[in-house]
Amino acid sequence: MRTRPLKVALLGCGVVGSEVARIMTTHADDLAARIGAPVELAGVAVRRPSKVREGIDPSLITTDATALVKRGDIDVVIEVIGGIEPARALITTAFEHGASVVSANKALLAEDGAALHAAAEQHGRDLYYEAAVAGAIPLVRPLRESLAGDKVNRVLGIVNGTTNFILDKMDTSGAGYSEALDEATALGYAEADPTADVEGFDAAAKAAILAGIAFHTRVRIGDVHREGLTEVTAADIASAKRMGCTVKLLAICERAADGKSVTARVHPAMIPLTHPLASVREAYNAVFIEAEAAGQLMFYGPGAGGAPTASAVLGDLVAVCRNLVAETTGPGESAYTQLPVSSMGEVVTRYHISLDVADKPGVLAQVATVFAEHGVSIDTVRQQSRQDGVGEASLVVVTHRAPDAALSGTVEALRKLDTVRGVASIMRVEGE
Amino acid sequence: MRTRPLKVALLGCGVVGSEVARIMTTHADDLAARIGAPVELAGVAVRRPSKVREGIDPSLITTDATALVKRGDIDVVIEVIGGIEPARALITTAFEHGASVVSANKALLAEDGAALHAAAEQHGRDLYYEAAVAGAIPLVRPLRESLAGDKVNRVLGIVNGTTNFILDKMDTSGAGYSEALDEATALGYAEADPTADVEGFDAAAKAAILAGIAFHTRVRIGDVHREGLTEVTAADIASAKRMGCTVKLLAICERAADGKSVTARVHPAMIPLTHPLASVREAYNAVFIEAEAAGQLMFYGPGAGGAPTASAVLGDLVAVCRNLVAETTGPGESAYTQLPVSSMGEVVTRYHISLDVADKPGVLAQVATVFAEHGVSIDTVRQQSRQDGVGEASLVVVTHRAPDAALSGTVEALRKLDTVRGVASIMRVEGE
Repeated sequence: MRTRPLKVALLGCGVVGSEVARIMTTHADDLAARIGAPVELAGVAVRRPSKVREGIDPSLITTDATALVKRGDIDVVIEVIGGIEPARALITTAFEHGASVVSANKALLAEDGAALHAAAEQHGRDLYYEAAVAGAIPLVRPLRESLAGDKVNRVLGIVNGTTNFILDKMDTSGAGYSEALDEATALGYAEADPTADVEGFDAAAKAAILAGIAFHTRVRIGDVHREGLTEVTAADIASAKRMGCTVKLLAICERAADGKSVTARVHPAMIPLTHPLASVREAYNAVFIEAEAAGQLMFYGPGAGGAPTASAVLGDLVAVCRNLVAETTGPGESAYTQLPVSSMGEVVTRYHISLDVADKPGVLAQVATVFAEHGVSIDTVRQQSRQDGVGEASLVVVTHRAPDAALSGTVEALRKLDTVRGVASIMRVEGE
Repeated sequence: MRTRPLKVALLGCGVVGSEVARIMTTHADDLAARIGAPVELAGVAVRRPSKVREGIDPSLITTDATALVKRGDIDVVIEVIGGIEPARALITTAFEHGASVVSANKALLAEDGAALHAAAEQHGRDLYYEAAVAGAIPLVRPLRESLAGDKVNRVLGIVNGTTNFILDKMDTSGAGYSEALDEATALGYAEADPTADVEGFDAAAKAAILAGIAFHTRVRIGDVHREGLTEVTAADIASAKRMGCTVKLLAICERAADGKSVTARVHPAMIPLTHPLASVREAYNAVFIEAEAAGQLMFYGPGAGGAPTASAVLGDLVAVCRNLVAETTGPGESAYTQLPVSSMGEVVTRYHISLDVADKPGVLAQVATVFAEHGVSIDTVRQQSRQDGVGEASLVVVTHRAPDAALSGTVEALRKLDTVRGVASIMRVEGE
């Protein structure tokens, strides 16, 4: 075994960083055995140096992250700061000074992954980021390596624990969105400002990263169609149950049927209770992958939290250190297919539409005509007089597969019908 | 990109081998892009050369596998023959002649993995075997690499599709074992001689491999305690349901509480319906991993079949070829902990015991005394007069956690009681 230790700089020492530092210390012998060389924490960049950090030598603490990555003796930089800047500049500087990088930064990778990969390649160093997607669940490595001889056609993921907790709560207790969000906040599953989670920004970043790796092409967060779950109602969940479904906020990445383009989107969707993703409870994450030869695979586990995310960071640290010892690098960016990303209008799926309509003869015929005119074929219709309205009924239409643009056109035309009082909800049906 | 192709010898061209050859041909460009060099099928060793093999150049076919691996121009040998010999000799010869090896051979790896790893290391070549455990499901790589910075404490796996199909059928239809086996055979899920599956040999081999990788120590198939599912009855399944459980044939690998030894075993067990493994249906496989930092992870997918297994082989082929191009090797055997494997008697778990007893006062007191004398604490007891017997009752005891040796002693003593007519079944309860 090599005796000179590999030196690691840790950027950020919050929930994840402090766990990384702790495990590096308590499991030092195991890590050395797995790497073939000892690893040593050589510096920790923080914003608040005065905070007491148990188990970390105070002499390692610095507020000057840039000076730390420029030191010249650093072999690996672990970036767990998050956000675009200064993380991007620090990672680029790290590569320029000969370090490999392990990052948990989904926002940055989804925004500018290509430039980071290019910098890593230019300087002959590694960029690993297992922790950026679904915390501890091994996904990046299985997609980049285990399935490297296969062709992935679809990725369906529950990649945000906060929203899964909220939807699971709504499903099991019948609670409305606000009530479920309050409970998630009280239990620490949702942040004080839950926007990034409930509006789907967090899931969209992960969708971009997953789509890029799965389809060997570049997908940025701006390419991902995004709808949050704030408009999901208790009535939607009840409708889903009647169909033998449940509602999940899904990140969906698909290769088009002709193989010439890809799509990536995040939105609430109904999935059948028989689908493996339907039983993913509470704040757990899971990603379901359909590959040509492998068939249907699912990866399940905790999608966030200090220790689980640290586990993913340390797995990458071992890999990156092993590569340094062997004087090689792991697989870099694989974007050789250069497939374009199509817009949401080209996505083909099924829809569950709930309409408030006048309770009189001929309404169904009118509605059905609008669907037909837009080329959207109806699978089932359920008509029901409403208890709360005089002369009103609700009409629930489930369609066959149709392009999203055709469905949008249909809904726009439905809104113009006198007999349609309102479109109560539109939800896609996936995973069938 | 390097232009000289990497040459691959394929040993075996059955269900898996023919899929490997097919994908290597149809996806040649993708594979070359992922590896950074073209790969070429340079020879295929078969037993029956006269069989028509669509898509394979007949000039590549040979019956002399030894000569093929000795040719000297082979970069990678893919071994999908199975069994101990001649596979072992061929793999050893391949290393001696400078080739890396991708194998799907669980029996050989569970029997003699250490010697194969040693040969690979001696010659500076790779030995990869993702396909040996649970077909297409990435498990070996996540355990060896993604969790390399974590500490795995337990692995619970449904790693045999045939037996899961049989148990799922018994659970959903109320069928008995023989009836469910007949259906599995008719549908092609069970072989004409189902011994390797139903007696747990196949699962035991996978348990040995998983335990070795998870705990960084050597575990051979002979170290694995093994019980098949042939004695599981419809009554056991019904009992499990009453407890909110289902019955699965599990491969269970555990680190002892003191961390100083490991155990590996295969047997039918009751698991709660709320456990993620409980919803694994039909012939699917899934492996549930408990790691110190990552928490609970599950990997799910098809555990067998030509295309899924070929997907795992090709993922390994890409990794091994990338290593050859980079003139390096991947992680070798990691057995540095050298933990001993304890016997079944030291395993600590819960038990569900069903007794046929005389229906008269005092029996429960007698039975409870026997449990107490052996240090096995009772959790619940359910007593029921039997409809089919005069003066007979059944007594169902569920224990708290106790060592397996203590439970065996208890059962032996129970059999000697005059009032105990028979021990109808003993089943362990896991996953709580």
